[in-house]
Amino acid sequence: MTTPILPGVYSPVMTPFTRDAEPAVPQFVSLCRWLRRCGVGLAVFGTNSEANSLTVSERLDLLDALIGAGIEPASLMPGTGSCAVGDAVQLTRHATRHGCGGVLMLPPFYYKGVGDEGLFRYYARVIEAVADDRLRIFLYHIPPVSQVPISLPLIERLLREFPGTVAGVKDSSGDWANTAAMIERFGPQGFLVYAGSETFLQRTLEAGGAGCITATGNVNPAAIVDACRRWREPGAQARQASLDATRAIFQKYSMIPAMKAAMAWKSGDGTWRSVRPPLVELDGGQCRLLEDELAAAGFELPDVDALRA
Amino acid sequence: MTTPILPGVYSPVMTPFTRDAEPAVPQFVSLCRWLRRCGVGLAVFGTNSEANSLTVSERLDLLDALIGAGIEPASLMPGTGSCAVGDAVQLTRHATRHGCGGVLMLPPFYYKGVGDEGLFRYYARVIEAVADDRLRIFLYHIPPVSQVPISLPLIERLLREFPGTVAGVKDSSGDWANTAAMIERFGPQGFLVYAGSETFLQRTLEAGGAGCITATGNVNPAAIVDACRRWREPGAQARQASLDATRAIFQKYSMIPAMKAAMAWKSGDGTWRSVRPPLVELDGGQCRLLEDELAAAGFELPDVDALRA
Repeated sequence: MTTPILPGVYSPVMTPFTRDAEPAVPQFVSLCRWLRRCGVGLAVFGTNSEANSLTVSERLDLLDALIGAGIEPASLMPGTGSCAVGDAVQLTRHATRHGCGGVLMLPPFYYKGVGDEGLFRYYARVIEAVADDRLRIFLYHIPPVSQVPISLPLIERLLREFPGTVAGVKDSSGDWANTAAMIERFGPQGFLVYAGSETFLQRTLEAGGAGCITATGNVNPAAIVDACRRWREPGAQARQASLDATRAIFQKYSMIPAMKAAMAWKSGDGTWRSVRPPLVELDGGQCRLLEDELAAAGFELPDVDALRA
Repeated sequence: MTTPILPGVYSPVMTPFTRDAEPAVPQFVSLCRWLRRCGVGLAVFGTNSEANSLTVSERLDLLDALIGAGIEPASLMPGTGSCAVGDAVQLTRHATRHGCGGVLMLPPFYYKGVGDEGLFRYYARVIEAVADDRLRIFLYHIPPVSQVPISLPLIERLLREFPGTVAGVKDSSGDWANTAAMIERFGPQGFLVYAGSETFLQRTLEAGGAGCITATGNVNPAAIVDACRRWREPGAQARQASLDATRAIFQKYSMIPAMKAAMAWKSGDGTWRSVRPPLVELDGGQCRLLEDELAAAGFELPDVDALRA
């Protein structure tokens, strides 16, 4: 079984925007600090971070701001995958030089139906261009969004060519059989398999996986971390069921706007509502429905005052 | 019926790369000059240009190089759509300030299942940020690749809000009924509908559309331009059939590597073979098969010496 050397739960940290749609740095720093206190690792610039709605320079600047604010680099796993390999190299090199614990790398996602050879070359080019022993790549398999899957044979080849550098995967396929196959096939080599949501957390840990990297880590971090830490203890199924119930509320809406609406509501900071196109914030009626449902479920953000900084 | 004010045939100009995978500027300029002599408009930075495998600064520099080399700005329709609206603004502003005849704008293509409201906001934000009366946007509808369609109601709303700026569309859906509907519904307002390939050229022109923006404009430009100019003359169906036969050869392979292989073969400049990941060049066997088939079909690049510059 794999022993995680990194946090078992990561959040793709939401990126707050001002009314002018610029990144809101103070709120971003506050959220990262708050998540760290909850025990969550920081997978900044993920899908739920609206990372692909940020320019490369915005991503570089935001990472610099976090490090400058004293966020521990080892707790960070920035998303650095890009359609253009040149962008992926620049972002990955920057994160690695900062000492980030890893990077989470999408495949290039514009062309569809590309083969493993082309995807291998993309990852290989980044690894060779960055040329830094500290680099730890987590492959990002999210076919429902990227439409470009990362196959088991591709992982096998990357592990063979770049052992130690290709460190793990986030499996957001939603297909448990695939997650289980990744763990079974590559886990014994120390390859860290993170489920793409807490829905599969208990099963992932029981099978020998590393944990989860999950959207709702932004809004339900303490409970997910607790479930991750205590997965062998009595009550695990009940804890998993509780996580599922909270997630189900958010999933009724567009996930990112709904999580941002909850953050705005609980923190009292309306900045959190903003999203960038092509996403659209929840309207007033949707916000009220979401708030009513979360209130009925007893939803709270622990230590929410820290988010008002 | 719409009277095209722009070339009837555009090519998404292929981007050549050196052995080090850097943009090969001399070859790029030569191809653009050659295409212009064939009467083709320059939809640089399209899908077949591997535009999304280029960084923003590479795209800015390449456009500067073309203008600097004396390519007429009015003949250019650079692709400027990006996942990040900030990138789309920068690229669109740059093209517009250069006096480009138009820009071809993908929707943001990372998130799937987004609604028209979010896509409207994306285009509106670019138009408002660029704030230049010269801006002419051609919407890029290519659901097989982008997976983010541009609906008829979205076009209607954009035309209502930004008349004169939203100038046309490239329909690469491959669905003739959709192209016909776009022409019928928006053509009378002067909206220019380009088919996404020459397969639909004759039908598009007969229905009142503007022409086509097509991959094979890179390798079969003169014949496509001839078919476009003479669409009302006798022999139109035979000309269309001839275009289809040439296209069919390339379509047996991965289109971009195959067109690059043909360009390398005919020009004698091996630079043309290179592609960037995630694409992979044709292997030796595929190249020989393609060359044999093209030779059997009598395929030639007219005035090919100009491509050896």
